[in-house]
Amino acid sequence: MKFKIGDKAEFCKVVLESDIIKFAEITGDFNPVHIDESFATQTRFGARIAHGMMSASFICTVLGMQLPGIGTIHTTQHVEFKKPVYIGDALTVRLEVTEIINEKYLRLSSKVFNQTGDIVIDGYSVVLPPRT
Amino acid sequence: MKFKIGDKAEFCKVVLESDIIKFAEITGDFNPVHIDESFATQTRFGARIAHGMMSASFICTVLGMQLPGIGTIHTTQHVEFKKPVYIGDALTVRLEVTEIINEKYLRLSSKVFNQTGDIVIDGYSVVLPPRT
Repeated sequence: MKFKIGDKAEFCKVVLESDIIKFAEITGDFNPVHIDESFATQTRFGARIAHGMMSASFICTVLGMQLPGIGTIHTTQHVEFKKPVYIGDALTVRLEVTEIINEKYLRLSSKVFNQTGDIVIDGYSVVLPPRT
Repeated sequence: MKFKIGDKAEFCKVVLESDIIKFAEITGDFNPVHIDESFATQTRFGARIAHGMMSASFICTVLGMQLPGIGTIHTTQHVEFKKPVYIGDALTVRLEVTEIINEKYLRLSSKVFNQTGDIVIDGYSVVLPPRT
């Protein structure tokens, strides 16, 4: 096992309006809170927000590209949505290995923060890292 | 509470190559198992597979558009990736209310099946349904 408890990686991403439109096209989730500014201003959020699962997907970008990296098999993802994400928010995804399960799987804490340091997603991942 | 245990909804979606490309553009997850056919054929999957979190995102399409519908606040999502999803797969997302928590939140089982009836994602959602 080349990974150890405490291994970390992070990824930064600014959320663009175009990301939200593309995400709606892929998923069919055209909920107006994501795409209709005049509707969204009437909600508790006060403006359009990103799809929660889009921000959660940035966790997998780190898993697949950095830690553990290419060849990783993602088996479980748990996410709790703590705060809304707005267009223009600069997100930081932070992953850290918290457990090695049966010398085979890794459990990582997977958290997403916005530019003011608020946690927007708290969660964990379980993955089978690449063999080599 | 207008919802009850046993309430159900479903959504069908064929996974297109263009969905995978767009998803990679949004997330920055250009892992070659998703976008490079010659690489992917050398892996255990034998062909390009969709990003797991893309298939998981279809769960949220049902939550936000159908059950509970527009105005829903998604608080928790848990997913276990059971089988790979390939380009051209026809997915069916099935949600069912399994618990009403404190007369306020709903817990739903959230499952995704492929065209042969295999479960590709097993999970659950917790949401705050719209008040009206």
